[in-house]
Amino acid sequence: MASDTFNLRTPGPTPLPDPVLEALTSPMINHRGPEFKTLLDDTTAKMKQVFMTQQDVFILTASGTGALESSIVNTLSPGDKVIACSAGSFGDRYVEIAKTYGAEVIEIRCEWGDPISPSLIEQSIKDNPDVKAVIITHNETSTGVTHDLEGICKAVKSNSDALILVDAVSSLGSIPLPVDGWGCDVVSTGSQKSFMIPPGLAFISFSERAWAAYEKAQMPKSYFDLGAAKKSLEQGQTPWTPNISLFYALDVALDMMLEEGMENVFIRQSSVAEYTRKSMKELGFKLLATDENRASDTVTAVHIPEELDSSRFMREMKDTEKIVLAGGQGKLSGKIFRVGHLGSVVQEDIEEVVDAMKRVLPELGYSNA
Amino acid sequence: MASDTFNLRTPGPTPLPDPVLEALTSPMINHRGPEFKTLLDDTTAKMKQVFMTQQDVFILTASGTGALESSIVNTLSPGDKVIACSAGSFGDRYVEIAKTYGAEVIEIRCEWGDPISPSLIEQSIKDNPDVKAVIITHNETSTGVTHDLEGICKAVKSNSDALILVDAVSSLGSIPLPVDGWGCDVVSTGSQKSFMIPPGLAFISFSERAWAAYEKAQMPKSYFDLGAAKKSLEQGQTPWTPNISLFYALDVALDMMLEEGMENVFIRQSSVAEYTRKSMKELGFKLLATDENRASDTVTAVHIPEELDSSRFMREMKDTEKIVLAGGQGKLSGKIFRVGHLGSVVQEDIEEVVDAMKRVLPELGYSNA
Repeated sequence: MASDTFNLRTPGPTPLPDPVLEALTSPMINHRGPEFKTLLDDTTAKMKQVFMTQQDVFILTASGTGALESSIVNTLSPGDKVIACSAGSFGDRYVEIAKTYGAEVIEIRCEWGDPISPSLIEQSIKDNPDVKAVIITHNETSTGVTHDLEGICKAVKSNSDALILVDAVSSLGSIPLPVDGWGCDVVSTGSQKSFMIPPGLAFISFSERAWAAYEKAQMPKSYFDLGAAKKSLEQGQTPWTPNISLFYALDVALDMMLEEGMENVFIRQSSVAEYTRKSMKELGFKLLATDENRASDTVTAVHIPEELDSSRFMREMKDTEKIVLAGGQGKLSGKIFRVGHLGSVVQEDIEEVVDAMKRVLPELGYSNA
Repeated sequence: MASDTFNLRTPGPTPLPDPVLEALTSPMINHRGPEFKTLLDDTTAKMKQVFMTQQDVFILTASGTGALESSIVNTLSPGDKVIACSAGSFGDRYVEIAKTYGAEVIEIRCEWGDPISPSLIEQSIKDNPDVKAVIITHNETSTGVTHDLEGICKAVKSNSDALILVDAVSSLGSIPLPVDGWGCDVVSTGSQKSFMIPPGLAFISFSERAWAAYEKAQMPKSYFDLGAAKKSLEQGQTPWTPNISLFYALDVALDMMLEEGMENVFIRQSSVAEYTRKSMKELGFKLLATDENRASDTVTAVHIPEELDSSRFMREMKDTEKIVLAGGQGKLSGKIFRVGHLGSVVQEDIEEVVDAMKRVLPELGYSNA
């Protein structure tokens, strides 16, 4: 990891590797000139490899949530029926975006911590044969659960022509997601997660089927209009001024990822995650993920027992041990803590967390440590 | 200026001062933690000084065009009548955004290169007493003309209660724009112009009157919902993950601007611009701005005479002289070149341009040089 003062263990942003930091200081260029065209073409081509897709991929100057909005407004019209499954705060966010733009959302809500079962979606599709799209969060950052996207895609495809729109903000690039292989139509992610660069860019794939939907989609869009992005990309440009510094950083980070090899990245992520879960259980904690086979390889959510003062624990970890953990979001606030392990993470980063917890917990009177 | 390989003379992005480059490499932090709260509160407070406003100001992770969209969707409903004046490609862009979201746009189009006369708007308001907003570009980057925003604001306010929405992307921070003093309701700008940092952040002010309009505004909005931004800002956060690196850079850049003093910044900008115009005329060129009193202090647009091969000229300036000029946009493509002089520019930067032109032009057979 980078030599920062803190061991930043939030599930994004992540610590930045030195080559990324260096790239961030590259000089400004004309974003309508040939140098930026090369940068845009190169990063887009490499990004397609990470997405495992032959379809279009666009790089937007926005955070991941902007890509989520983009996935909705470029494929749907007000009144279109969509099925949306949520088992956490990011699932809820995706639902809210669809509703805001006038989609008729059939909501499937699962317990936070539970995986979403493909059979639930299958049933909902059978009940609603006119559904235009299924909206799904691949990895629920707020609960540390990776849903069975492959199974969900199969369930959708066997029963309908609905588009599959995926929030892969905290999975793509760390957890296998063969976009074309599974038949995902629109997949969104963000720069500060697997990509080891600061927040500020969002990445989105867009299938042929999605383009067919685009032609009919009546939701208004301007900044997030992917038709404009496609037209500009053909000229080696973006429709609006791009975040040039992050493109430089992304170019370097994608090289790092592809050099390591995506298969190796997935193995490293999985192994660090396994180590994290094992360590947390050894410390006497219980995972929020109710099915450990579905526990996330990018973020681990851990129940805070009643006898532990959660805010004092987080504060001690930060002030004394220089380790930044993430708290719970929404209704999980104060009830869980989360350990992020994505990006350039290695096992030593988590060993630091575990060692620190072994020092801090006894001082807080927590006995199982 | 920064010690870059090229003298980047586009009207944004601009060269980055060394303290900005250094700030860009600051380590990542938790964007839901106290350090980011401090950064957000500090930059927002300083930004209000640059905007000369007591109203709300928000920092969005997007390029300037995102702020323009924000100004529309947060104040208007489909079918609302707005007056929009355009005399260039950015004026046209603002019109398009308003139309996309369903506003009924009364367009006033002036010749590209002409200033927009307040009397045109006054007449249009008298003809349309039910107008909800007036949309205006303060500094038209594509033509190098600064419109009489003060006069336009007076014309609007004397004749109606219409909101005043201002595209100040290439003016605010370089050209005087007392947001409260002139009664502008929503003013948008971007990070890569006067602020000497990379593209990727947008800044927008939002008046009390704009908030009253927000309550009734029916255009859909999610990523650009300023109500969400306001709610989050009260907790020292942004609703979506912010571009942390650019916040660090912005903090440093705002200190530089406020230390120099905004009055001094305006004087420097004005003097460099005056020098640019004088030099271009001495080289035998004609400005695109038809009224030199309204020529922009941030970008100078210059007619390319027929006898000069525009693409060869631009290429020679770049390849041989390491000076990057901007071309014309839209219907001005190939007909003008533009010299950007905003951000951390000093007269020496333009002297380099002039000296280079004196070498390049004779080789291209251009006689007046």
